[in-house]
Amino acid sequence: MRIARIATEAGPRSVVADGEHWHGVVDPFAPEPVRTGESWPISGAALLAPVVPTVVLGMAHNGAPGDRDLPPQAFQKSARTIVGPGDRIELDASLGTINIEGELAVVIRRTSRHLRAEDVADAILGFTIGNDVTAADQIPLDDKLTQVKNGDGYTPIGPWIETDFDASDARLLVEITGPDGVRRTVADATTASLAYDVTEQLVYLTSHLTLGPGDVVLTGAPATFAPAVPGDIASITIPGIGTLENPAVAAVRPTSAHQEQVVTV
Amino acid sequence: MRIARIATEAGPRSVVADGEHWHGVVDPFAPEPVRTGESWPISGAALLAPVVPTVVLGMAHNGAPGDRDLPPQAFQKSARTIVGPGDRIELDASLGTINIEGELAVVIRRTSRHLRAEDVADAILGFTIGNDVTAADQIPLDDKLTQVKNGDGYTPIGPWIETDFDASDARLLVEITGPDGVRRTVADATTASLAYDVTEQLVYLTSHLTLGPGDVVLTGAPATFAPAVPGDIASITIPGIGTLENPAVAAVRPTSAHQEQVVTV
Repeated sequence: MRIARIATEAGPRSVVADGEHWHGVVDPFAPEPVRTGESWPISGAALLAPVVPTVVLGMAHNGAPGDRDLPPQAFQKSARTIVGPGDRIELDASLGTINIEGELAVVIRRTSRHLRAEDVADAILGFTIGNDVTAADQIPLDDKLTQVKNGDGYTPIGPWIETDFDASDARLLVEITGPDGVRRTVADATTASLAYDVTEQLVYLTSHLTLGPGDVVLTGAPATFAPAVPGDIASITIPGIGTLENPAVAAVRPTSAHQEQVVTV
Repeated sequence: MRIARIATEAGPRSVVADGEHWHGVVDPFAPEPVRTGESWPISGAALLAPVVPTVVLGMAHNGAPGDRDLPPQAFQKSARTIVGPGDRIELDASLGTINIEGELAVVIRRTSRHLRAEDVADAILGFTIGNDVTAADQIPLDDKLTQVKNGDGYTPIGPWIETDFDASDARLLVEITGPDGVRRTVADATTASLAYDVTEQLVYLTSHLTLGPGDVVLTGAPATFAPAVPGDIASITIPGIGTLENPAVAAVRPTSAHQEQVVTV
């Protein structure tokens, strides 16, 4: 099943795909979502982030050789960083290099705590694509990653959730189309390179905290990152899900002597 | 003005205090909250966490001598850790020492980004009391604090929000009543000891991320922490606001060979 959220004249709606239409559902997290009777043509529908998470987690150091020699570790991203397909990633030049990171994203279906490995599949609604935007030059300044991971538009997700998806060896194709219109491949990897797999991640995370419906886990970047500049369009493709595209733009922010001083602390 | 959230037969309601009654309001974040016409006696009302935040931030190293020599730094807590007055803090014995931390908590009123110092007061709805529960022995294992700060019931806030409050030199009295019924003072401090004050905190935080209505910033613990054990009741008093009390209980969790193995990674 393919689950999305779309903008309609009556407001955002959770929908499932069937034939040529998106069909409204009462509760996308229900085991058998009940349809509302509303429907919209798939062609031309305005896709939003497919869920509105309460908790957004990302796995740290989970894609490079040797990462499995480290214990699993995760960081949180503000739920206010979540945006949908086509939404803008805002690049603040004062922060230095800002990377896009193409990742498989897990969407949680139900309240989950102390999951055992055999319970993980039941706790997952499905999978979408995540772009874990990262202000890389801020990492040495902030090991807690708060000033690294939380800029505006820093967590595009979408375009939709696929409930039937094999996460074990999914291709992660990351491309950037530059301001010059040239498209280049910046990474072509697989989730098989993740140090800890999805099951291990959710067992670890729920051993420390509660996850619930709509929460998102960014599963890690096996070298699927590259710096972005204003005018770039970031495209992340996972066959079996689709392509998530977002433009990078220069952040517009007020400037004053006072703020400059604080930002460069 | 005193703003709370209470449980009613019709569900949670945002309310303001007036005389002997809580009065329902349409939007507690409005400059002049409009009353719904509903009211409930203050005596006996069931207080909930006064807001449901999207983003919960805590200031790191912000209360000890020398902390101002470090740049400001913050961590995120899961919004699922938020609980209200009287709710339980769950202590998982496998995590080692778990501290309660009494702190002044700022509640944000409006969307806020790149705040200048002179804009901070307008961005604040008011102040409440926060208990930034911390699994202290996990800190050396996780500098990102995900497994330190996110257990169930780890962020009690309340009992309500005071909109007229001077945050510059507020007393922070932290007491624990043990299972033996003996009440002891574990800290008696002041927000004047915070390395970075509330204005500096919000200028710093909003230079890196967007805050919005109901978001909470835990302003730091000037040695206002102490270990808790099951059976303790944590009481944090800030004159001008009130007292936030929460019992600490032993976390109940499933055990299996598999999970023990993961937890002790």
